[in-house]
Amino acid sequence: MRSRVESIFGLHAVRALLLRHPERVLRLKLVAGRDDARVRELTELAKQHGCPIERADARALKQLLGGAVHQGVVAEISPLPPWTEDDLIEALSQAKQPLVLALDGVQDPHNLGACVRTADACGALAVVVPKDRAAQLTATVRKVAAGAAESTPVVAVTNLVRCLTLLKAAGLWVVGAEAQADKRPQDVDLRSGTVLVLGAEGGGLRQLTRQSCDYMVRLPQLGAVESLNVSVAAGMLLYEAVRQRENPQK
Amino acid sequence: MRSRVESIFGLHAVRALLLRHPERVLRLKLVAGRDDARVRELTELAKQHGCPIERADARALKQLLGGAVHQGVVAEISPLPPWTEDDLIEALSQAKQPLVLALDGVQDPHNLGACVRTADACGALAVVVPKDRAAQLTATVRKVAAGAAESTPVVAVTNLVRCLTLLKAAGLWVVGAEAQADKRPQDVDLRSGTVLVLGAEGGGLRQLTRQSCDYMVRLPQLGAVESLNVSVAAGMLLYEAVRQRENPQK
Repeated sequence: MRSRVESIFGLHAVRALLLRHPERVLRLKLVAGRDDARVRELTELAKQHGCPIERADARALKQLLGGAVHQGVVAEISPLPPWTEDDLIEALSQAKQPLVLALDGVQDPHNLGACVRTADACGALAVVVPKDRAAQLTATVRKVAAGAAESTPVVAVTNLVRCLTLLKAAGLWVVGAEAQADKRPQDVDLRSGTVLVLGAEGGGLRQLTRQSCDYMVRLPQLGAVESLNVSVAAGMLLYEAVRQRENPQK
Repeated sequence: MRSRVESIFGLHAVRALLLRHPERVLRLKLVAGRDDARVRELTELAKQHGCPIERADARALKQLLGGAVHQGVVAEISPLPPWTEDDLIEALSQAKQPLVLALDGVQDPHNLGACVRTADACGALAVVVPKDRAAQLTATVRKVAAGAAESTPVVAVTNLVRCLTLLKAAGLWVVGAEAQADKRPQDVDLRSGTVLVLGAEGGGLRQLTRQSCDYMVRLPQLGAVESLNVSVAAGMLLYEAVRQRENPQK
């Protein structure tokens, strides 16, 4: 059985993967004629790791990627293998200030894809989802994640509450979001290892998930609409974690 | 010509509209049998404003709203009329610390709807979009905005740069987002009147729009993927503005 091949594109994404996981880059494709410093850097990185480089024409890339902005650079990669719960726990031990996003039953693959994309941009270690009654890592999710699913693993777990307990035992704080919470995200210290937990569209966190949280925080709710889209809510919480980690004071 | 009627639903959304714009609520529909304190408050508000109240059965509401979580409460409302640039400028004079979101050529109606929903949750005064080559306020946008388009107006302007100039003249700071910016959102004071400007999906801000900005800020970009979804980016920036405004120090 031949393993599946995925494509990622764009200078930033391809560079990040060549730096972080060169072993996963099977082939680098460059549009003929591009030869600036950023492309030369990619060529150099690919050569260092013995990765084949191919010239492609712009039309072929357009056909492969549709209207996506590829900047003349595409990498064929072996997809990121799904992580098990054990992989996640092992990875924690090597991570400094790990940040994990857990989604309690998000059903819509577009929302999951958008969450993975946002988690990746904010340097999250992984996105945890329950195996049952929740969107899983499908082709649609990978597409919406715009390459992020090749960089930030999605971990499907049998029991989300058990997984949160394991993450707590590994030293992480569990911070959930709900509309009625007293605290705001900036009231909680998100600088040490943290799991951010968001509920399903409309429904919020399940009771047992809620009880697993060390802190509950509320997101802005100044308008007529009661809840934010889950990927936007994830973006706000992840942003706040990044902001706190960049600042000397909380 | 009979004017169009929209429905909004859910305790929070209906209450917000009855408090802020009771003149726009044409009829309140309540599921028979619900009679708790929150529903009684709505009934009281509706009566104060002479708004007719009707009992509806759960099945009829389900048919009207699909799977949406209506909490037994629906209001028929006259849609928010679109604002002109003049309406926006006039509204500024009455707003304290006005926050405006401007989108420079966002094409996807789902993204515009998600931005309106997020802007509403963060208390933005309005969302500004160019009239040409950008998504406009359509039925799809209203639906994705989940009621927010009935509370936060979308202002379609002929010339975005001219509108930003008018907003600056009215005392607002113009803050744009781009990946290469030196400053982070927390480095800029967003507590006084502010316009947050985001570019189109993939393309970023146009040159003239960029030149209209007082500050440029970058959003987290720690992963493999170069850009965030525009509604997630809007969520992060709006969140930061809300956070700064809630805190005594920046």
